[in-house]
Amino acid sequence: MNYQDVFVQVIEKLDGFKDLGKPASYIPELQNVNSNNFGVHLTTIEDQNFCFGNSDDKFSIQSISKVLSLVMAYKIENEDLWKRVGVEPSGTPFNSLVQLEHDKGIPRNPFINAGALVISDILVGHLKDPKQELLQFVRRLSGNPKLEFCSRIAESEKSMGYRNAALINLMKDFGNIHNDIDEVLDFYFNLCSIEMTCKELSKTFLFLASNGKDPITKEKYLSTSKSKRINAVMQLCGFYDEAGEFSFKVGLPGKSGVGGGIVAIHPNKYSIAVWSPKLNAKGNSSKGMKFLELFTSETESSIF
Amino acid sequence: MNYQDVFVQVIEKLDGFKDLGKPASYIPELQNVNSNNFGVHLTTIEDQNFCFGNSDDKFSIQSISKVLSLVMAYKIENEDLWKRVGVEPSGTPFNSLVQLEHDKGIPRNPFINAGALVISDILVGHLKDPKQELLQFVRRLSGNPKLEFCSRIAESEKSMGYRNAALINLMKDFGNIHNDIDEVLDFYFNLCSIEMTCKELSKTFLFLASNGKDPITKEKYLSTSKSKRINAVMQLCGFYDEAGEFSFKVGLPGKSGVGGGIVAIHPNKYSIAVWSPKLNAKGNSSKGMKFLELFTSETESSIF
Amino acid sequence: MNYQDVFVQVIEKLDGFKDLGKPASYIPELQNVNSNNFGVHLTTIEDQNFCFGNSDDKFSIQSISKVLSLVMAYKIENEDLWKRVGVEPSGTPFNSLVQLEHDKGIPRNPFINAGALVISDILVGHLKDPKQELLQFVRRLSGNPKLEFCSRIAESEKSMGYRNAALINLMKDFGNIHNDIDEVLDFYFNLCSIEMTCKELSKTFLFLASNGKDPITKEKYLSTSKSKRINAVMQLCGFYDEAGEFSFKVGLPGKSGVGGGIVAIHPNKYSIAVWSPKLNAKGNSSKGMKFLELFTSETESSIF
Amino acid sequence: MNYQDVFVQVIEKLDGFKDLGKPASYIPELQNVNSNNFGVHLTTIEDQNFCFGNSDDKFSIQSISKVLSLVMAYKIENEDLWKRVGVEPSGTPFNSLVQLEHDKGIPRNPFINAGALVISDILVGHLKDPKQELLQFVRRLSGNPKLEFCSRIAESEKSMGYRNAALINLMKDFGNIHNDIDEVLDFYFNLCSIEMTCKELSKTFLFLASNGKDPITKEKYLSTSKSKRINAVMQLCGFYDEAGEFSFKVGLPGKSGVGGGIVAIHPNKYSIAVWSPKLNAKGNSSKGMKFLELFTSETESSIF
Repeated sequence: MNYQDVFVQVIEKLDGFKDLGKPASYIPELQNVNSNNFGVHLTTIEDQNFCFGNSDDKFSIQSISKVLSLVMAYKIENEDLWKRVGVEPSGTPFNSLVQLEHDKGIPRNPFINAGALVISDILVGHLKDPKQELLQFVRRLSGNPKLEFCSRIAESEKSMGYRNAALINLMKDFGNIHNDIDEVLDFYFNLCSIEMTCKELSKTFLFLASNGKDPITKEKYLSTSKSKRINAVMQLCGFYDEAGEFSFKVGLPGKSGVGGGIVAIHPNKYSIAVWSPKLNAKGNSSKGMKFLELFTSETESSIF
Repeated sequence: MNYQDVFVQVIEKLDGFKDLGKPASYIPELQNVNSNNFGVHLTTIEDQNFCFGNSDDKFSIQSISKVLSLVMAYKIENEDLWKRVGVEPSGTPFNSLVQLEHDKGIPRNPFINAGALVISDILVGHLKDPKQELLQFVRRLSGNPKLEFCSRIAESEKSMGYRNAALINLMKDFGNIHNDIDEVLDFYFNLCSIEMTCKELSKTFLFLASNGKDPITKEKYLSTSKSKRINAVMQLCGFYDEAGEFSFKVGLPGKSGVGGGIVAIHPNKYSIAVWSPKLNAKGNSSKGMKFLELFTSETESSIF
Repeated sequence: MNYQDVFVQVIEKLDGFKDLGKPASYIPELQNVNSNNFGVHLTTIEDQNFCFGNSDDKFSIQSISKVLSLVMAYKIENEDLWKRVGVEPSGTPFNSLVQLEHDKGIPRNPFINAGALVISDILVGHLKDPKQELLQFVRRLSGNPKLEFCSRIAESEKSMGYRNAALINLMKDFGNIHNDIDEVLDFYFNLCSIEMTCKELSKTFLFLASNGKDPITKEKYLSTSKSKRINAVMQLCGFYDEAGEFSFKVGLPGKSGVGGGIVAIHPNKYSIAVWSPKLNAKGNSSKGMKFLELFTSETESSIF
Repeated sequence: MNYQDVFVQVIEKLDGFKDLGKPASYIPELQNVNSNNFGVHLTTIEDQNFCFGNSDDKFSIQSISKVLSLVMAYKIENEDLWKRVGVEPSGTPFNSLVQLEHDKGIPRNPFINAGALVISDILVGHLKDPKQELLQFVRRLSGNPKLEFCSRIAESEKSMGYRNAALINLMKDFGNIHNDIDEVLDFYFNLCSIEMTCKELSKTFLFLASNGKDPITKEKYLSTSKSKRINAVMQLCGFYDEAGEFSFKVGLPGKSGVGGGIVAIHPNKYSIAVWSPKLNAKGNSSKGMKFLELFTSETESSIF
């Protein structure tokens, strides 16, 4: 399929779209971005590439990188991983802490903050140099050996990270954090500070559209079963309190970040990354979601 | 693919499976069943049929029928429907009532009891003879013109239905129930009392594996977009507090009922119904879920 | 002490008080009242009487009557009563339903709606003619043999009583309601519809200021221990989510109603009833609370 | 009244009392105590003293000292204090964190951990040497110039204090903690580590039984109004989730600690301290509560 033509049609339809969202504001670093930027990049498993707009601009992928740390931890712990974190959607955000208390420190899934902290704890506990090993893994996936953490963003988040400190202390109280709290938080804030372009992001997630194997280099990163399961977790839990909405309207497994990025994959077809900084009330890219909704409608490529 | 061979292999693997569950016990009618029954029936969109075990025994499909009432209401109300009920997973059951209060009487999705009551309210408000029209619709889908409500089960549920009465009164207080409470409850309890065999159930859901069109009679029940969206809602919300687990392990959109039935579909491939009365702690058929997990692993037919 | 002089001083201090509240509006009947009415009546245990303003106007005492039904039920069930209802403050209202679910249908205390419904259930189960016997009891206490339910108010509440229906159905589901739901609700709505003047209300509660005995007629309504315990429950639970505020500022056991009435007692000294229809955000009489705060400050008669 | 005789009678009645509780176990230091110890000391406002059992043994007063830090903070901040902490009972413990989130970081009252942390933050922010000034204040009240923090207990609590760290971080996120988290926690853990005998504890709280003035030295620690209000807060919030039960059965304002101590006062009469290390399910001294229940019944000295 010529996705380039589809991009043009969808962009036309988006013309009248009122983007009422605002970029994330809780840390200054995320606000210092042109909020009208919009980029998209699609990579097929045959390595065809299609792009539009600011697809080569770097942005903070934020929570999207939680999928990558999960992949690393899943390879290390296998199914034992799920003793420490669930695979269920988190429900409404107003009960995030009470849920953690109710479930005795076991987060509902690896993509809410509490869950990503547990995954970080696992990596900190198993890896010699957790931050460097993470970076090497992501560089390999993205094909860009120069990818870096953004220390300004990591520091900025750390200085405002009282809520995450509350979560990790609560889980430590329940015995579900095994390493030093400050070390885990340092890893976590760096994890969320990775910057990529749409092109790199699309490339990075392509192995999940291909049963865990990079379709170009043929490198197998994850077993077929595990790759499908990661996709299932993205489908159910990838969009905070809007996972249902995204499944309903877009119909692909994916993951969003408060930097305005969204990545989604169609198994055996493609990986697509879109970026637009203005967020809706649920913290997901407003225009990015609308673009993907129109895109999968146009191409009838919802997985359902 | 010869699914019959797969059935045999999976059944062999299930040989050592300890089914520690128990049939639903909250109404006597659901207990009066041989808890060791097990049946499965698969229908491909080319009308190939494969079955095993008690696939021609009738059982109470219970909540599975909530998908069918949703289909009817969706056709009537179109996207306006979602003003009165959400599409998000419900999260942990311990907060079902507080959620309803927090969201001012709007249920999280159409498959939790509160949501199915709102759907029932819509049908009661729009149809001349709601129960008969529902029955005719289900008879058409299933190919069995003699399908009936089970009045014993409906009466039994009604006599114990204080929790549903609590839910509907709370929603009425918030203005999200428009018709007479007793009339809506009567419809709802009948809806949940429908009895089918695995064969009929598999046939009934085949249109959702085929973009809303019966692949055999070519009758179009639902637009492609709506059909995909119903599947998305099933994927996210079809298994109570275990939707993540089912997606993770089975990887198909589906719906369960406390009668021990599960139906799942693979878009453009097949519809499959399985029945085993013993339920796990979350209220889903224990052996049925395990069967489907092994089945999609064996056939690599998870949608992810 | 000459309370009349204190009244005058307090009224003067209240001169600049901005009463920003509004009368209860959920049923029309409660709105049809002059919202600027203000009355107060104090009765000492030596039968001295002091009054001010509209102290002889009738108003709907609403939840205040829940103390009287509790007294009746306590006499019947003795300490067994507390197996079905607690004596703890209810905490924030946003979790009333989740609390009831968490505690398996046992309300936190007899003054929240759920608790008063359980008390009503007890009276309906034990009395031959519950409404008449309640009325006779209240007539005796008040000294007014003509006291009546207000059927317009009872009917008005009944027609809007979906939330109470939700509560009682949920408790019935947990087995904590033994009688017919409609019969209990009918009793409950009548209970809340009693009308009194400040003078009658003050007189009605005098026995609780006197260890359970009417200090004038010497009739013993309740043992000393039980009378003190009723006062303790009023102190801890008498003002919805504002029990702490009332204890902190006024410092007397008391009970409020959404009709704008408040009754409070000082053990071994007096009973005082105040009425002003405008309610604050927590549903208690705004000016009534302020009056009592100034009154107990002036007289240094907080029990603490 | 000869309270000594009452002590003897009550102890006799307690003879058959089965104390099924256990000492607090979350830190080892609190377990290293003879769990059968029992002591009581009563001081009247005329400086009469009555005692029984281990009334001269030191024990960790734990949360009881939260009243003392509140008194200090109340003198500094006056009524502005209540902008940062409420005076309402906390309701069920299962929602402590969700309550804090719901109320945007404002704890329900100064005696739950979150509230005591806010009080600690106030003292840390206003005092030059917070720990020393607290100690001097408590020494003056108790009449024992050698009172000390127990550093072993403070360290022990600190090493297990993840839940308190969670609470304070959450409040810092909401802007209700102004000072350095570690400094506030250090103060808080020391505050809770104070050790006293029943005799000292009884003496320490006597000013609250006497409108804020030490009845013997005539030193005025707190205005009458503030003293009464502190008592009101103790009455409503002094016993965790059992404040209602304590008010109902004992009928005095008081405060408990997990070290097994309880102090209660009868305004204008006496202060009483009791100590018995075994705790009931709610974390209050089991035998201590029973003793006080029998004691106020016998003396008819409930304030209600």
